[in-house]
Amino acid sequence: MRRGGIDRRAFLGVGGAAIICTIGGRTIRVETPEDVAEVDAAVRRLKAPRAVAAARAEGLDAVDELKFGTPEPQPGGQVREYWIEARSLIWDVAPTGRDEFMGHAIPKPRTFRAFAYRQWSPGFAAPLGPPSIPGPTLEAEVGDVLRVHFRNGDEHFGQAVTMHPHGVRYTPDYDGAYMGDYTRVGGFIAPGEEFTYTWEATPDSVGVWAYHDHGPNEDLNTHRGLFGMIVVREKGAPRPDVEAGLWFHQFAPAITKLRRNFQCVNGRVAAGNTPTIRAKVGQHVTFHVFGADDMLHTFHIHGHRWRAPDGTFTDNQLLGPMTSVTASWVEDNPGRWLYHCHVLSHMHAGMNGWYLVDP
Amino acid sequence: MRRGGIDRRAFLGVGGAAIICTIGGRTIRVETPEDVAEVDAAVRRLKAPRAVAAARAEGLDAVDELKFGTPEPQPGGQVREYWIEARSLIWDVAPTGRDEFMGHAIPKPRTFRAFAYRQWSPGFAAPLGPPSIPGPTLEAEVGDVLRVHFRNGDEHFGQAVTMHPHGVRYTPDYDGAYMGDYTRVGGFIAPGEEFTYTWEATPDSVGVWAYHDHGPNEDLNTHRGLFGMIVVREKGAPRPDVEAGLWFHQFAPAITKLRRNFQCVNGRVAAGNTPTIRAKVGQHVTFHVFGADDMLHTFHIHGHRWRAPDGTFTDNQLLGPMTSVTASWVEDNPGRWLYHCHVLSHMHAGMNGWYLVDP
Amino acid sequence: MRRGGIDRRAFLGVGGAAIICTIGGRTIRVETPEDVAEVDAAVRRLKAPRAVAAARAEGLDAVDELKFGTPEPQPGGQVREYWIEARSLIWDVAPTGRDEFMGHAIPKPRTFRAFAYRQWSPGFAAPLGPPSIPGPTLEAEVGDVLRVHFRNGDEHFGQAVTMHPHGVRYTPDYDGAYMGDYTRVGGFIAPGEEFTYTWEATPDSVGVWAYHDHGPNEDLNTHRGLFGMIVVREKGAPRPDVEAGLWFHQFAPAITKLRRNFQCVNGRVAAGNTPTIRAKVGQHVTFHVFGADDMLHTFHIHGHRWRAPDGTFTDNQLLGPMTSVTASWVEDNPGRWLYHCHVLSHMHAGMNGWYLVDP
Repeated sequence: MRRGGIDRRAFLGVGGAAIICTIGGRTIRVETPEDVAEVDAAVRRLKAPRAVAAARAEGLDAVDELKFGTPEPQPGGQVREYWIEARSLIWDVAPTGRDEFMGHAIPKPRTFRAFAYRQWSPGFAAPLGPPSIPGPTLEAEVGDVLRVHFRNGDEHFGQAVTMHPHGVRYTPDYDGAYMGDYTRVGGFIAPGEEFTYTWEATPDSVGVWAYHDHGPNEDLNTHRGLFGMIVVREKGAPRPDVEAGLWFHQFAPAITKLRRNFQCVNGRVAAGNTPTIRAKVGQHVTFHVFGADDMLHTFHIHGHRWRAPDGTFTDNQLLGPMTSVTASWVEDNPGRWLYHCHVLSHMHAGMNGWYLVDP
Repeated sequence: MRRGGIDRRAFLGVGGAAIICTIGGRTIRVETPEDVAEVDAAVRRLKAPRAVAAARAEGLDAVDELKFGTPEPQPGGQVREYWIEARSLIWDVAPTGRDEFMGHAIPKPRTFRAFAYRQWSPGFAAPLGPPSIPGPTLEAEVGDVLRVHFRNGDEHFGQAVTMHPHGVRYTPDYDGAYMGDYTRVGGFIAPGEEFTYTWEATPDSVGVWAYHDHGPNEDLNTHRGLFGMIVVREKGAPRPDVEAGLWFHQFAPAITKLRRNFQCVNGRVAAGNTPTIRAKVGQHVTFHVFGADDMLHTFHIHGHRWRAPDGTFTDNQLLGPMTSVTASWVEDNPGRWLYHCHVLSHMHAGMNGWYLVDP
Repeated sequence: MRRGGIDRRAFLGVGGAAIICTIGGRTIRVETPEDVAEVDAAVRRLKAPRAVAAARAEGLDAVDELKFGTPEPQPGGQVREYWIEARSLIWDVAPTGRDEFMGHAIPKPRTFRAFAYRQWSPGFAAPLGPPSIPGPTLEAEVGDVLRVHFRNGDEHFGQAVTMHPHGVRYTPDYDGAYMGDYTRVGGFIAPGEEFTYTWEATPDSVGVWAYHDHGPNEDLNTHRGLFGMIVVREKGAPRPDVEAGLWFHQFAPAITKLRRNFQCVNGRVAAGNTPTIRAKVGQHVTFHVFGADDMLHTFHIHGHRWRAPDGTFTDNQLLGPMTSVTASWVEDNPGRWLYHCHVLSHMHAGMNGWYLVDP
């Protein structure tokens, strides 16, 4: 068990899989903090890729010379503006110091340098709170455009990051993906830089979706906390009375320099630290649950069943990397309920939380 | 390959993942029999959690003070009573000593101390056979209640266990889940104790579901064999002519102290030991296949296809921890057929079996 | 990171899982090229199993004595004949030497001995190109039969291989599966031998399916490249304008003797080597994406969404071993787009490629 020491093995944590990063001409198997430091240093040395649309260069294709406009809302739609900053911070995986599911203390140290998105008021006038894991939820209705003013405000990691959205429509300029020499303007936002992404909520965007870093160090920085949720509804569709966004992911020892592999929900470990969701009988309740690491997870909640999109009843559905499950019901079962990943090793390493239902 | 010896690595087995247990204030990475012994000892030292409804104490919420009745059947429904004991036993993973799929012997030793559910006649008058993996199948129709008299009859492991059901409706008292200080009465059944669970088969309970241990050592004890199936049908719905419940899971070396990681179906390894299902042309055949460990599996069967709930045709579907696949068809293809997990390393380590179809 | 050397650990690669082979009376954990050599040697020593239908022998069942005919097409259907050879070859995982996604070179060595299917003209008159990974696509319509003349033409590995199809209907003789003493004629095609498989495209065969080796060394030989796609359409159904078959799988160091674990699409690593799919606005585009190793994958493509069979919109779906996702849309979004597995460690180890859309 080696609780008294850390060896290379220990860093692999639950799931047994190293993180693999390809950067600066090498593919690196990340198992220890030193491996992480090496990847981070390689990313810092990266230069901004040439702007592909600037000039036809060797290896470029006709599609790389295409020019794109900026979409406007459909008739009746609106512009939904957000100001989002990426910033590192010291993050506590267990602020209460307690694992309420198993009824014991979670020993220190429990903090490390995470990377997270943070919402600001219009014009980056003032932060609307600290950076959060997950980042701020972006909402739109069909026909709207999301206009996301993004700033890489980090002063610690010194590397380019982005916002890449799932589910919404965008041109290559607003893809937010680093792609080597083919990178478009939105795919490499260096420290101190700003960029405005414009994304369309189309009829086939209805649902919930992830956004996350897709810069050159996407692999480590997503694992550090750079992810959040987009919700697209039909025009005029009501919000559920209770709507929770949960992210199942791990903070690996290589990244945290902590001794344990923390299996988290929304950056926290174990009931009492993870989100406690509260509802009352009669309310429309919806859980959106995402996978945000490289592992298989499931979403299970006690005392409740729901109808899956395929028509079957379920209380436990599979989740993978950046896929999600939406579970909805009209509440009818009061009490204290546990939600958790049904990978038992994940559940026991912290991937669980409370759902409290008042009569 | 190290067939001649056992090192720490060897215990990780296929999938490369250790079992993680959180118990007695520590999170333990379980890789060897010594790790297992340490977890078991910590569980034995646990005291029964305070009864949350007894008195308002620090940290308790209003929902923890709620009192619940015991549900009765809906009009026209009935009470389905079962007497179930949890008991350890020496289990042989390969009673025939043969791997018929690959055509060779499976060398001894092949036995270890498993933990399993066992059905008794009414009033615990007499056992209806030995403990089995999976445990007895519980059946109900919509409107019924399942009344399950449960006894922790184990004399070896010395720790509390439970029955936690999926799919059916229950109040917190009948959740059967250990939750530290918030544990309700049904969540900690100590050795020698009995408890009666009452669960409702509601309209959205239709389907097949797992039940399993959810006591303080759920992680190890589920991996030891404490799981079984609940089938809920519409009122009056016929049973298929052939209905098989298969559980894909592993017995890890840390748990068995055996040299190999056995990839099992229903606690047995390899065709000839795993269930041989038999049908004949014209019969309605249904396989319910569950995942009962922490791994990704698939259910594939040769010579047959079925319609998945989403409307597509398939012969191979994904399974995860305590999720299931139901595959149904009218038999039309005689012969000897192999069923297996399509994770090839699982298939080759024993997760396979025979399906024989007579003309 | 140990880039300068190779230890046992390094061979496990991403995912942390060894390949497990059961052969010649032993279950072998394959981690190094020496382990692979031992498995290959054991397979070479295997004798052809007795023909089960020849005589009633001990342990055989009535179903093993059944005799089967060879199916003919339904009225209006046709015979679709293919000539396919299995043959090993030296395979380059990165012919361009570039990782265009991350913008750097992929150092040599990049070649190893793979095993692949190869199409010949009728009567094995002439090869229609080199062996390919995946193998040739087999197409049929409902009511047709696929008649596949198969030759084990390999001169290197010296072991029996087969073709086992998913999705189509076949008798046990045409199952193409090694099953120890119960193996039928099509389940053990020794080097130099030929066998003709006949498979029916039934109404519930509509969809896309894998075929792959299912001989005694299926586990290693499928991981070496012996897999391909079967497409069954409704009678007269049109082909999409663009139809791509992608296989997400890994070439593990134990198998390749190369230093890295290559996460591949169609046997190649990283955009520029993996298939570049090209379409233009207005075209009907379909991607069929399969998992062809033991891991969990997802299919994600930038700039596009599609309707899953369950009716939800998605841009990222789970894949497992020999399961597939079909993603279809009418193209409306020009530019250079990345497709990839959303297991970030797979993506960064090469499981990605380009999709280019002309206006």
